[in-house]
Amino acid sequence: MGDLGDNPGAARLSKKALRKLNREAEKLSVEEGKPQEMPAVVLDGSGIEGASVRYGILPLHQSQCKKGPDYVDLCRLSSPELENKHVWIRGRLHRSRMKGKLCFFIVRFQDYRVQNVLSVSLETPKEMLSFASSIPKESVIDVHGCVKKSPVLIEGCRPDTVEVHVDRVYIVSAALPTLPLQIEDAMRPEDDETALSRVNQDTRLDNRCIDLRTPVNQAIYRVEAGVVRFFMDYLTKAGFVNIHTPKMISAASEGGANVFKVSYFSGNAYLAQSPQLYKQMAIAADFGRVFTVGAVFRAEDSNTHRHLTEFVGLDLEMAFKNHYHEVVDLIADMFVNMFKGLQREYDDEIQTICKQYKAEPFRFLEPTLRLEYREGIQMLREAGWELGDYDDLSTPAEKFLGRLVKQKYDTDFYILDKFPLDIRAFYTMPHPHEKMYSNSYDFYMRGEEIMSGAQRIHDAALLTERALHHGVEIEKIKAYIDAFRYGCPPHAGGGIGLERVTMLFLGLDNIRKTSMFPRDPKRLTP
Amino acid sequence: MGDLGDNPGAARLSKKALRKLNREAEKLSVEEGKPQEMPAVVLDGSGIEGASVRYGILPLHQSQCKKGPDYVDLCRLSSPELENKHVWIRGRLHRSRMKGKLCFFIVRFQDYRVQNVLSVSLETPKEMLSFASSIPKESVIDVHGCVKKSPVLIEGCRPDTVEVHVDRVYIVSAALPTLPLQIEDAMRPEDDETALSRVNQDTRLDNRCIDLRTPVNQAIYRVEAGVVRFFMDYLTKAGFVNIHTPKMISAASEGGANVFKVSYFSGNAYLAQSPQLYKQMAIAADFGRVFTVGAVFRAEDSNTHRHLTEFVGLDLEMAFKNHYHEVVDLIADMFVNMFKGLQREYDDEIQTICKQYKAEPFRFLEPTLRLEYREGIQMLREAGWELGDYDDLSTPAEKFLGRLVKQKYDTDFYILDKFPLDIRAFYTMPHPHEKMYSNSYDFYMRGEEIMSGAQRIHDAALLTERALHHGVEIEKIKAYIDAFRYGCPPHAGGGIGLERVTMLFLGLDNIRKTSMFPRDPKRLTP
Repeated sequence: MGDLGDNPGAARLSKKALRKLNREAEKLSVEEGKPQEMPAVVLDGSGIEGASVRYGILPLHQSQCKKGPDYVDLCRLSSPELENKHVWIRGRLHRSRMKGKLCFFIVRFQDYRVQNVLSVSLETPKEMLSFASSIPKESVIDVHGCVKKSPVLIEGCRPDTVEVHVDRVYIVSAALPTLPLQIEDAMRPEDDETALSRVNQDTRLDNRCIDLRTPVNQAIYRVEAGVVRFFMDYLTKAGFVNIHTPKMISAASEGGANVFKVSYFSGNAYLAQSPQLYKQMAIAADFGRVFTVGAVFRAEDSNTHRHLTEFVGLDLEMAFKNHYHEVVDLIADMFVNMFKGLQREYDDEIQTICKQYKAEPFRFLEPTLRLEYREGIQMLREAGWELGDYDDLSTPAEKFLGRLVKQKYDTDFYILDKFPLDIRAFYTMPHPHEKMYSNSYDFYMRGEEIMSGAQRIHDAALLTERALHHGVEIEKIKAYIDAFRYGCPPHAGGGIGLERVTMLFLGLDNIRKTSMFPRDPKRLTP
Repeated sequence: MGDLGDNPGAARLSKKALRKLNREAEKLSVEEGKPQEMPAVVLDGSGIEGASVRYGILPLHQSQCKKGPDYVDLCRLSSPELENKHVWIRGRLHRSRMKGKLCFFIVRFQDYRVQNVLSVSLETPKEMLSFASSIPKESVIDVHGCVKKSPVLIEGCRPDTVEVHVDRVYIVSAALPTLPLQIEDAMRPEDDETALSRVNQDTRLDNRCIDLRTPVNQAIYRVEAGVVRFFMDYLTKAGFVNIHTPKMISAASEGGANVFKVSYFSGNAYLAQSPQLYKQMAIAADFGRVFTVGAVFRAEDSNTHRHLTEFVGLDLEMAFKNHYHEVVDLIADMFVNMFKGLQREYDDEIQTICKQYKAEPFRFLEPTLRLEYREGIQMLREAGWELGDYDDLSTPAEKFLGRLVKQKYDTDFYILDKFPLDIRAFYTMPHPHEKMYSNSYDFYMRGEEIMSGAQRIHDAALLTERALHHGVEIEKIKAYIDAFRYGCPPHAGGGIGLERVTMLFLGLDNIRKTSMFPRDPKRLTP
C-alpha cells in the first residue's frame, strides 16, 4: 500500500479510509476465521476501467475521474440485448458463498437481486474468490462481467433468468462486518411460521437506514410518494393553488391543548397543529381553492398504532357556491382518482408489500358511498351497540362500523356526513335546519378515519359565539376571527393524514411502517 | 325582519348575523352621511333564485339549498356566447358610485374586475341603487344581470369589453365598513409618482388576508406554486422519490448554532435547520434519488431583505456513479426546465406582477453557465476587489459578481463550482487533487445564492475527521456519522430556498413578498 503516494490528493485521504477498512477486514477475518488482507486498488487518471488489478478496495470516491463506466441498472439485466454482453453494475453485496472453485454472490439494489459467479481460472486466482466471499454484507460494490442466461430460474433473485459471470469486483464503500440487523430477517414475511428470526420494530427504527433497504420499505415509500402526487396533481388540475403555511405560530391555533412550545428569541412560539387558520385566510384572500402539504404537530401523549407527534398533513380548502357537498364530492373524486392511480401505477410495489405484509386489496365504490351519521349510529345499534343519537364514535365503534359497511356495501372507503354539532370543532358550520347537527364529515378507510372536514363558519359573530360555547379563549384566536371581518366566501375543506392513508390503503397495522422517520412521545431519533 | 322565524334553523343564526350586519350598516350610514337600513332577504326552499326581493342581505350561508344558480366566473364574461344572456356572478364589491339614476359598481375576483350597472326603473327602485352603493367595499356579493357589450373599453376592468346590467344584488358576506388598507392603494405600481398613498409592508403583513387579494399577490403565489410543481414534476420523472423528513430532531443537526429549541414532553427537541441528515440517510438506504419539500428553521437574528426564520426548502439528494457533476448537470437542467415552464405557463401572472413591481425579464443560458470559484475570484479582482484565493464571498461581492457575469455572459443564472474547502460545511467532500478546494457548488439567480450543494462525505472515518477539524461535537452528530458505517454510495445534492427562487425569478426586492405568512425575528403573526 506504500505506493498510494503516487496519487497525492486521493492518497492523503484514502490512506486513512483504507486503514479503517483494513481494521474492519481484520475483524472480519478474525470473526469468520479466515485471516486475509483486503487488497487496495490504485486508480490512475483512467479510473476504474483502467485499474491494473481486478479486485480490491477502491480509494474513497471523490469524483476523481469525470469519465467512467456506463453502469447498467439491475432491473435491465434481463433485456435480450444485454445477453452475452459485458456490463458494469453497482449495488450491495447481499450475500455470498464459496463452493469449491466457485464463488456465488448476490448484488442487490432496491427490489432487484442478481446472482454473480466467479470461477477460478488463469485470470481469476483463488485469492479473488476469497476476496469476494469476504466482502462484508451490505457493502457497496462495483462488478464487471458478462451477462449470461441462467439454465434454471435463480431462487430469490429478480431478474431470476440471468447471472453475471464476473471478471472484476471492487468495494466502493465497505460496511462494518457486524450488522445491527440482517436484511434477510427484515425481509421475511410476517406469516412465515418457520422458526427463523425476525426483526422487531424498535430495532428496525433504531437502524432505519438499513431497515429502509428492504424491498417492502422501498415499495412503501414509493407508494406514499404516489399518494402525495395524485393528491397534488388532481387538485392542481382542479384549479387549486399549492400554498405554504407557517409551522411556528404565535398562539395555539385550535384552543391550546396538545401544543409544542418553542423558544423564539426572547419569547415563545408554538408548533402549528394544523394549517387551518392559514388555509382559511387564503380563502378569505380570494385564492378560491388551496391545498398545502406539510408537517403538523400534536403534543398528545398517545402511544397507539395510529398516532404520531409529527405527521404529514394533506390539507385543502375550497370556496363553494351553493352547498358544501360540492367540496365533499370533489374530495371523494380526488380519492377515487388516487386509489385508481395507485392500483394502476404501483401494482408492482403493492405486490411486493403484500408478500411480506398480507392484506386484502383495497375496495372502493364509484361514486363514493356517503352515509349520514345517524345512519351509521342506526347500523351500530342494529348490531347491538348502545349509542345515543349524538354520541361520538369510539375507535372500536368506528372499526366495527367499517366492518358493517364493508359487509353491506363491499367498500373499504366511505364518508360519514352530518356529524352532531357538539362533537366537532368550534369553527364547524351548524346545519341550517337541524340544530343538533353540523355541515361536517369524516372519510374512512378500512374503518379508520383518514380525513376530517367541514363547512367552516365564515362569519366573525357566529364564530365568536361558537368559540365561547366551546370554552375557547377568544383573545387567543383573535387573528383567526378577524380574518372573517372583511368578507369571506362560504367554504369547506379537510385535513388528511398522509401516513394513515398509505397505511390503510396498503392494509398495514402500524403507522410507523409508513412514516420514514416516525416521531412519537418515546421516539425522537434517528 | 320578524318573519325570519319562518325558517327556524337558519333564522336562529342569521338573526344574530343580521343584527351585526345592521350595526355595521348603521356605522356605514353614519360615516357616509346617508342613513339607511340594510334590507334582509328571506330565503325559502327555492333558494336565492326564488327570493321575493331583488336586493338585500342574504341569511348566513349554511348550505341551505343543495341546488342554486350556476355562477359564471368573471373571466368568462367576455365569451361571445354569454352576450345578452342573464348570468349569476359572485365576487367582491371593489368600488361603487352613484350618478343620478345610475349606480356603477365593480365586482372583483382575483385578477378580474367587471363593471356592473343599475339604473332606476319600474322594477329597480331608487332604494335598490342606494343599497348597492352603500355595500361596504370588499363584501362578497351575488349579482344577477344581463351581459352587455360595452360601447367603450372600461378602464381598470378585466374583461373591459362587457358590463353587467344588474337586476338583483345581494350581500353574501359583508365586510366592516372601515378597511385597514385600501386594495386600490395596495395595487398601485411602485414607480407611480403621483402623490397617492401606498401601503407599507408592515400594514400589508398585519392585514395579510386583505393584502393577498391584490392581483399581484394572487399572481406571485401562483408562480410560487409553479416553482414547486416544476421542481417536483421534473425530479419525479427523473426517478426521484418524494420523501418526508422530521422537523423535530433530538440534536442540532449541523453543529448547534442558530437552532430553535422545543419542549418535547419531559425533554427537549430542536427544529431541523435542514433535512440534510435524513435525505442522506435515504441515500444510504438505497432510495437512489430523493427530494423533499418542507419547512426549515433558522434561529438567526438576521433582519435583511432575504432572511426568514422559517422558509420552504426544496431539497434533493442523488447517488451518482462517476462524478458529482452528474448531479450538478441534472439540477441545472431542472432549473432551466423550471424557468422555461414558468415563462410559458405563467406569462399572464408575470405580466401582472411587472405592472406593479417593474423588473427585467429573467435571462438564462442553455446549457447553464458553470464557472469555477477561482474564475469568479479572478473576475472580481480584475474589477478591483481585493480578495484572497480562499476567501468567502460577502453578499456585496456576490451581487457584484452577478453583475459582472450578466455583462459578460448575459445570464441571470449561473453556477460557481469548486469552492474552497475551508468555507464549506464539514460534510463537504474535499477535492480529489487540490486539497484547498472541495466538490461543492452554489447556484445564483440575479447575483444572489439560491442553492448550496456539494458531494457529501460518505465515509464515516473521513466525516469524523472533518467534523473534528470544524470543531463540531462528535457526540451530537453520532447518528449522522453512523449512517455511513454500513455502506453508502457516493452522492451529492443541494438545498434550494423556495421563496428566494420566486423572489429572484420575478426580480422582487424582499423575501416577504414571496412568503405568504413570513416569519422573521420580529414577526410571528398572523
